[in-house]
Amino acid sequence: YEIQKALMVRKSHLPAQTEDGIRIPVMGNIELPEEVVSVLDHGGDGIGLYRTEFQYLSRPDFPGEDVLFENYKDVIDVMGDRPVTIRTLDINGDKAVNYIRDTRELNPALGLRAIRYCLKKPEIFKTQLRAILRAAAYGNVRILIPMISGIAEVEQAMAMLDEAADSLIRQGFAYKRDVPVGIMIEVPSAVITADILAEKVDFFSIGTNDLIQYTLAIDRNNRHVAHLHQPLHPAILWMIKRTCDAARAKGIQTYMCGEMAAEPLFAPILLGLGVDELSMNPQAIPMVKDAIRSINTENVAPFIEKAMTMTTCAAVQELLERSFGEAVGRLEPDLEEL
Amino acid sequence: YEIQKALMVRKSHLPAQTEDGIRIPVMGNIELPEEVVSVLDHGGDGIGLYRTEFQYLSRPDFPGEDVLFENYKDVIDVMGDRPVTIRTLDINGDKAVNYIRDTRELNPALGLRAIRYCLKKPEIFKTQLRAILRAAAYGNVRILIPMISGIAEVEQAMAMLDEAADSLIRQGFAYKRDVPVGIMIEVPSAVITADILAEKVDFFSIGTNDLIQYTLAIDRNNRHVAHLHQPLHPAILWMIKRTCDAARAKGIQTYMCGEMAAEPLFAPILLGLGVDELSMNPQAIPMVKDAIRSINTENVAPFIEKAMTMTTCAAVQELLERSFGEAVGRLEPDLEEL
Ligand SMILES: [Mg+2]
Ligand SMILES: [Mg+2]
Repeated sequence: YEIQKALMVRKSHLPAQTEDGIRIPVMGNIELPEEVVSVLDHGGDGIGLYRTEFQYLSRPDFPGEDVLFENYKDVIDVMGDRPVTIRTLDINGDKAVNYIRDTRELNPALGLRAIRYCLKKPEIFKTQLRAILRAAAYGNVRILIPMISGIAEVEQAMAMLDEAADSLIRQGFAYKRDVPVGIMIEVPSAVITADILAEKVDFFSIGTNDLIQYTLAIDRNNRHVAHLHQPLHPAILWMIKRTCDAARAKGIQTYMCGEMAAEPLFAPILLGLGVDELSMNPQAIPMVKDAIRSINTENVAPFIEKAMTMTTCAAVQELLERSFGEAVGRLEPDLEEL
Repeated sequence: YEIQKALMVRKSHLPAQTEDGIRIPVMGNIELPEEVVSVLDHGGDGIGLYRTEFQYLSRPDFPGEDVLFENYKDVIDVMGDRPVTIRTLDINGDKAVNYIRDTRELNPALGLRAIRYCLKKPEIFKTQLRAILRAAAYGNVRILIPMISGIAEVEQAMAMLDEAADSLIRQGFAYKRDVPVGIMIEVPSAVITADILAEKVDFFSIGTNDLIQYTLAIDRNNRHVAHLHQPLHPAILWMIKRTCDAARAKGIQTYMCGEMAAEPLFAPILLGLGVDELSMNPQAIPMVKDAIRSINTENVAPFIEKAMTMTTCAAVQELLERSFGEAVGRLEPDLEEL
């Protein structure tokens, strides 16, 4: 077993390609700049999610533009020409910043968080956007906007990006405006209107943790309802599929950066539903790459067609294990460690 | 204007029928048994939502079966053969019962509320179900189960109903098991799997307040995000339509009991999307009945087709006002009073 694991880690530096030759980028999620090393060590093809809250949570007040710029550039420098997906500030919700948290929010997960907060605090948002655009001049940056619920928020965020770029021009900073800008798909209304949103952005990234939370109306950190947190709920599969279908129809790609992406057994289902790229905690990368290599997408299509007719989570899981458990099942013992 | 209003109240005792002869039942929402009088005074065709939390919130401990039975029978006796839709306990969330509330829930709206709570406390649930089935022997009762997120909860609730009925037989109580049992459609996953759920229940009732809250991930009581609470969001219209379509395909009806149902200007959209019955606070009934009478459903179909292609709330609202504002618009001054 130890030998198998060592082999897997060594293979992790090769691309993840299905049996029939489809290449799936497998990326790492990071929170701290130094975690970028772990992503490379585990064979990550880039950073699929750089969470930027830490720079705000670890201080007594808001960080300045230069501090943020240095943080982002540190990551970009290490990654070279590999993609670095910087998610704009996703505070409040479960990540509360002491100096700004409105403790009167009864349901913070449904409150003034992420892009909602940023659009209400344009100076704070613009500071971060300027730092990102400046750092983007040094590598392969993508910008990812969290908690989009409708088209108006996308348009406002894009306008803020333009403003940030304009101010950088005027002040003579080096920067790059021409970077892919995508949105997190994690609010149910974003899935339903994915065809509308796809016209306005360069990529989607499905955040399964929040998407499951809102779709099933279940706080994922509340142990009393933990039994209802079901990634294989027919409604969740449907939502992933709808997102991918809408993206493909408009010629953009769909990534995934929630916990679902880190589970090797889910790889066949995610590929089958149309997810183009997976991002996860660095330690999970080797196993997911290995799972992808064992998949032949020709077997995936009929499996998905059958899975989408299932009426219960248990039935989907049973079919999944029956169809792919042998190929990716041996990875399961490792799951506990993630 | 006063004369117009007086005429409207008088007309409220006639059925609400569209210009082309389609009859739409307009029902009242109540919380206390005595509110039933107000429903009749305002021309309500029945009780579309009898909220049963008050009997739990107003006491130091759980009410007994006989207390509940008397409460339900009081309402049923006044309503005669008109439908009385009793919703099973929907506590926690925003309605917290002091003696059971788990104050450690960070997001109560996403926590152990409604049917989730009832299924974890079978004795409390069974007490209520027995009281409802006993009261049902005296009138035209429907049972409505809140916060359903998937099929397993429906099956468990149905099994509890059977158990409650069995225990009543054994003990020789008068009761009626053969009542329509429906579910609230207010969790996004219930909309997505409406075709599956429709096989198991006798009707749907869309709870727009919670459905909007979860679909847009917005706490409707949080003023910081109040600007994002948009009933005409394309995703909300889509969800209503999907629910109605799934119900119709399986031969059941879709009712609506959220605040959206109480807005006369929304009547054309709701009828067009396929809602079969509306329920609201009693004071709104005359205006909504009047709005329904001004609608010709032949004009509604092309309007809906166009509305469903709109990409913003503002565009939908503009089209709605342009298409039907003249017919139902004169009712708007009253809205503030609700
Ligand atoms: Mg999220
Ligand atoms: Mg509700």
